[in-house]
Amino acid sequence: MEKIDIRRRNLLAGSAGAVVLLASSRLMAQEARPLPEYVAYKDADGLIVHSNNTIETLRSAQGVQPVTPDRLLYVRNNVTPPPASILEDRDAWEITFEGVGEPRTLTLGELKTMGVETMAMVLQCSGNGRAYFEHSPGGTPWQTGAAGCVMWTGVPLRTVVERLGGAVSGVRYVTGTGGEEIPEGIERLDVLVERSVPIEALDSIMLAWDMNGEPISLAHGGPLRMIVPGYTGVNNIKYINRLALTEDETDALIQATRYRIHPVGTEGSPEYPSVWEMAVKSWVTGPSESASAGMNQITGLAFGGMNAVESVEVSVDGGETWEAAEFIGPDLGRYAWRAFVLSKELEPGTYTIVSRATDSEGNQQPEETEPNEAGYNHNGWRRPGLEVSVA
Amino acid sequence: MEKIDIRRRNLLAGSAGAVVLLASSRLMAQEARPLPEYVAYKDADGLIVHSNNTIETLRSAQGVQPVTPDRLLYVRNNVTPPPASILEDRDAWEITFEGVGEPRTLTLGELKTMGVETMAMVLQCSGNGRAYFEHSPGGTPWQTGAAGCVMWTGVPLRTVVERLGGAVSGVRYVTGTGGEEIPEGIERLDVLVERSVPIEALDSIMLAWDMNGEPISLAHGGPLRMIVPGYTGVNNIKYINRLALTEDETDALIQATRYRIHPVGTEGSPEYPSVWEMAVKSWVTGPSESASAGMNQITGLAFGGMNAVESVEVSVDGGETWEAAEFIGPDLGRYAWRAFVLSKELEPGTYTIVSRATDSEGNQQPEETEPNEAGYNHNGWRRPGLEVSVA
Repeated sequence: MEKIDIRRRNLLAGSAGAVVLLASSRLMAQEARPLPEYVAYKDADGLIVHSNNTIETLRSAQGVQPVTPDRLLYVRNNVTPPPASILEDRDAWEITFEGVGEPRTLTLGELKTMGVETMAMVLQCSGNGRAYFEHSPGGTPWQTGAAGCVMWTGVPLRTVVERLGGAVSGVRYVTGTGGEEIPEGIERLDVLVERSVPIEALDSIMLAWDMNGEPISLAHGGPLRMIVPGYTGVNNIKYINRLALTEDETDALIQATRYRIHPVGTEGSPEYPSVWEMAVKSWVTGPSESASAGMNQITGLAFGGMNAVESVEVSVDGGETWEAAEFIGPDLGRYAWRAFVLSKELEPGTYTIVSRATDSEGNQQPEETEPNEAGYNHNGWRRPGLEVSVA
Repeated sequence: MEKIDIRRRNLLAGSAGAVVLLASSRLMAQEARPLPEYVAYKDADGLIVHSNNTIETLRSAQGVQPVTPDRLLYVRNNVTPPPASILEDRDAWEITFEGVGEPRTLTLGELKTMGVETMAMVLQCSGNGRAYFEHSPGGTPWQTGAAGCVMWTGVPLRTVVERLGGAVSGVRYVTGTGGEEIPEGIERLDVLVERSVPIEALDSIMLAWDMNGEPISLAHGGPLRMIVPGYTGVNNIKYINRLALTEDETDALIQATRYRIHPVGTEGSPEYPSVWEMAVKSWVTGPSESASAGMNQITGLAFGGMNAVESVEVSVDGGETWEAAEFIGPDLGRYAWRAFVLSKELEPGTYTIVSRATDSEGNQQPEETEPNEAGYNHNGWRRPGLEVSVA
């Protein structure tokens, strides 16, 4: 499918030019990468393949999409996914519950008899927007495309926990374990995908088997994934085979030292905040390079992380002056994103277009995000700006 | 992807047994049909291929899907779709506007600068449920699967009409013309896909270029489709290249004699009501054949046609007693469907499970639908019932 590639325009984007140029140079060298076999069904024209396990959506392909189709949803796997054979008999998939009154193992088929709910939510990699940090963090230089809005269907975790006798006393975390295979000769905790989130999330967590009305694909965690709405992608454990209510956080390095917010130049450790809740964020997705003078539709996407997004402003002069944008399409709920539009007459010239969202608690996107060593949780409004030439 | 095939259970379904057996026998003979090339990307395991231009979604694959993915959406083309080459330069697609103050031809690229909106809507073939009529109408024996809930993105027609000087006086219909090629030697009006809908629909019509966050596929009318929310599928003109506000309905046979509600045994003609607005409807989609005694989730889909769906009741004894079901997932608006669920303990035995929806105006599904010759607009609650054995 044809999609305008707006990567090039990012190179021109205001004060972020230097770092984005670096990031994009890396991308350019990789543009010819084909889609890996396990995601061969995806839309190559709408994606940037950074590596077999890191693929982002082109900003232009995000457009005003209310829900991101699997074909365009970003991919981020910390380790190689399990073999596709785990999807052959989905209902036979097993998950062990611990830290409850009656710990036991349930099949996915059994979970499906307990309850069913559907929830729309922004799935966003912790490192989305890393390319916009000036200190050039290591890791994938994601721009705006390591994020999508997805509809999950599954059973509320609280329903399952109640059926299993409730939480035992003293637990402070929900700890989920992924079913990826641990290669021989590697220290298990070094690669284990196991994350702990605060027990307060228990009420909103879902164990999901469908995504966007279809059984979850392998790339996105099928047959069963733990969904923690409002939390970054890494907390949403794919191929989950163990869910434990625990007193302490897991010792897996992905929790203990990685995915921590720590100062530039330091090493991650448990004393630093974990990458959990997402903050209010937005970015512009259009118009395209071919913008002509006259009426234009300035579009973008906005979400509130843990809170509903309340409003979005757009500036065409790099943040000097702002105008209110309008949301378009149905409201999919607190954890979803909303597309927005500002209809505006544009004279010939060059515009630096940025957007700034505010959530229902009054939190507003900052102009810049405080740097952190690994480049997590970017939500500043200035650097993802688009430079658009109107002729 | 694995999906339980619940076609077989339809054979057992209560009083509808005779007609559904007939319909399903026809299906069985066609089960081996492969997907035609232009929809090869679809999920064959979730679809019933009646012919190259008539493909329906398995009821089990519909499940509780909030939005129907393209891979599972039914296909119904009245004539062969245009060549895929029409998608090579989508923005160059042209549509001519007539019956407005300043009639002219616009490209899709120009339409995109005028405005953008997203709308969720049930897309349902006029003949969906035809298999449940006792008089065995001709035409495709659709069961529940010629329907989906789709998110369309495009420009409101009223925005375009306003930009073109408004409607001329005296117009009573919005008439859309499809861009299918008319084969040589065939009378144009015999095959032309051109439909007229009442001018009252003008305020809700959209000219759409995206479906579910992606450019509309060829099978579903890309690059540009007229969307008339609340109206049956045939009114949603694919590949639209002419939109006229007219004093009279088109003379194309698809309007004049076909898609009319007329008594069994009669011929269609303009004196009979056209198949336009949809009525309140629902059906059960689960549990699957493997239902075990104990807690079960009885699921289904419901919509109100022109009105929002307000409530759904479920009966497990063929309509003797009813219980209120709960909606699940976000409300996508007046024209969308909503998935519903009734959590219920089921003892071993055989159950006839039916559902009955009520819309926001108090209209309720009838037990049976008044027969009409061509088998349109079925919305009776009894015949789509599921016979479920619980062991």
